Amino acid sequence: MNLSLNTATVRKQWTLAQIIDGCARHGITGISPWRDQVAQMGLAQTVQAIRANGLTVTGLCRGGFFTVPDWHDDNRRALEEAHELGAQCLVLVVGGLPKGSKDLRGARDQVRDAIAALLPEARAAKVPLAIEPLHPMQAAERACINTLEQALDLCDELGEGIGVACDVYHVWWDPKLEQQIARAGRKKRLLAYHICDWLVPTRDLLNDRGMMGDGIIELKKIRALVEAAGYAGHIEVEIFSDAWWSRPADEVLDTCVARYQTVV
Amino acid sequence: MNLSLNTATVRKQWTLAQIIDGCARHGITGISPWRDQVAQMGLAQTVQAIRANGLTVTGLCRGGFFTVPDWHDDNRRALEEAHELGAQCLVLVVGGLPKGSKDLRGARDQVRDAIAALLPEARAAKVPLAIEPLHPMQAAERACINTLEQALDLCDELGEGIGVACDVYHVWWDPKLEQQIARAGRKKRLLAYHICDWLVPTRDLLNDRGMMGDGIIELKKIRALVEAAGYAGHIEVEIFSDAWWSRPADEVLDTCVARYQTVV
Repeated sequence: MNLSLNTATVRKQWTLAQIIDGCARHGITGISPWRDQVAQMGLAQTVQAIRANGLTVTGLCRGGFFTVPDWHDDNRRALEEAHELGAQCLVLVVGGLPKGSKDLRGARDQVRDAIAALLPEARAAKVPLAIEPLHPMQAAERACINTLEQALDLCDELGEGIGVACDVYHVWWDPKLEQQIARAGRKKRLLAYHICDWLVPTRDLLNDRGMMGDGIIELKKIRALVEAAGYAGHIEVEIFSDAWWSRPADEVLDTCVARYQTVV
Repeated sequence: MNLSLNTATVRKQWTLAQIIDGCARHGITGISPWRDQVAQMGLAQTVQAIRANGLTVTGLCRGGFFTVPDWHDDNRRALEEAHELGAQCLVLVVGGLPKGSKDLRGARDQVRDAIAALLPEARAAKVPLAIEPLHPMQAAERACINTLEQALDLCDELGEGIGVACDVYHVWWDPKLEQQIARAGRKKRLLAYHICDWLVPTRDLLNDRGMMGDGIIELKKIRALVEAAGYAGHIEVEIFSDAWWSRPADEVLDTCVARYQTVV
């Protein structure tokens, strides 16, 4: 089973140690941990537990937030951790508008310059950087890169060692989705594929993601596009949801596995 | 003062007759009424009151919702009303996914076919159709046309008599905003310009728009783009907001005028 668990999915119920153990028990073969959880467990212990359970680290969440002053030190540490974990990529949530600013173009320039500065270090660490374009509704607060096309234009400008994380929640609506997934594949820039669902109605801009099958995203269709573009890695489930955070974690993982086998 | 009032802005406080009177009292020279309000007041009386006050009808809201079965009859009536009102355009909120469907591509095809069928009638009535691309967060429920580029591609396919309504709330985040506003201008397809603001944080996907100046949209910059593209019409304020709907309507209009004069 090519399923990976983004640890945010059960972060309110379990520690990272419990999540690693849960993945193994549920037959989930990949994991994408968040840095705060890794820090809490300890990097060395995390590496050891992940290896002991034979899990693939499909990404480390997250680097980025390039529009705050201390971005460089923080991203260097993220690269080191990703290297130690053997993560297939460091996921970049690039950051939104600087505090008090409305200058979106300026924020985008800052992000480009910061990634250009970080990229040689990422190449040296052999950690691919994966820009995750975020839904336009999160442009001000979390990421001013909002479409695959925009992210891939930036990748083309920056060269080797960088690609994209394609999360259906952020890109399902995009009229150029098919075209840009194909482009990402051609350029070998499709580094991660994340799933969940878009609920109708959606009641919160951040924490109301749906379990696969409960919303309106054409999951099988988008998966087919990604696979046709050459992506052969894990499929990573990442659900930020007050509703799912309030259920027992074993039930959440059971549901993820069942839906993976039927609707993904 | 080149300010127009979209009547939704004070729809919970005032009847359309009161809104028309309010525009005149506050020096607002344009109006864009919603069809339910026109129906309630009566079409003939609405036309008479708007003319008596010398208001420009910058649009009629709204046609569209092409993915429901009775779309054609309803849009024919909308065209007739827009013609009677002398509206500068019929604003199209094109509709989202059909009930029970996840087929976004199919919905987009339906929208294209419906507009192609409606367009000859719109040309005959001399009512320009204005596709309003809606924010991607409203793609499933309200409009599957979500970027200016997508809307303008469709306009190019359909020919004369159709253009776009550019609402900052829906397009401010778009990395291709500058390019596509210029394109709309070159093709004479910029039919309306709507303003409000994007609040940080935004607490509701539909009814948490901000008053101009209270959010992070670069209003003067986008206005400059629109004017550089040749747009010389009214600037229409359209605020869906539980907060502003709960204030006295005269205070809302005073604020719209004050902000128009300072931050727009």
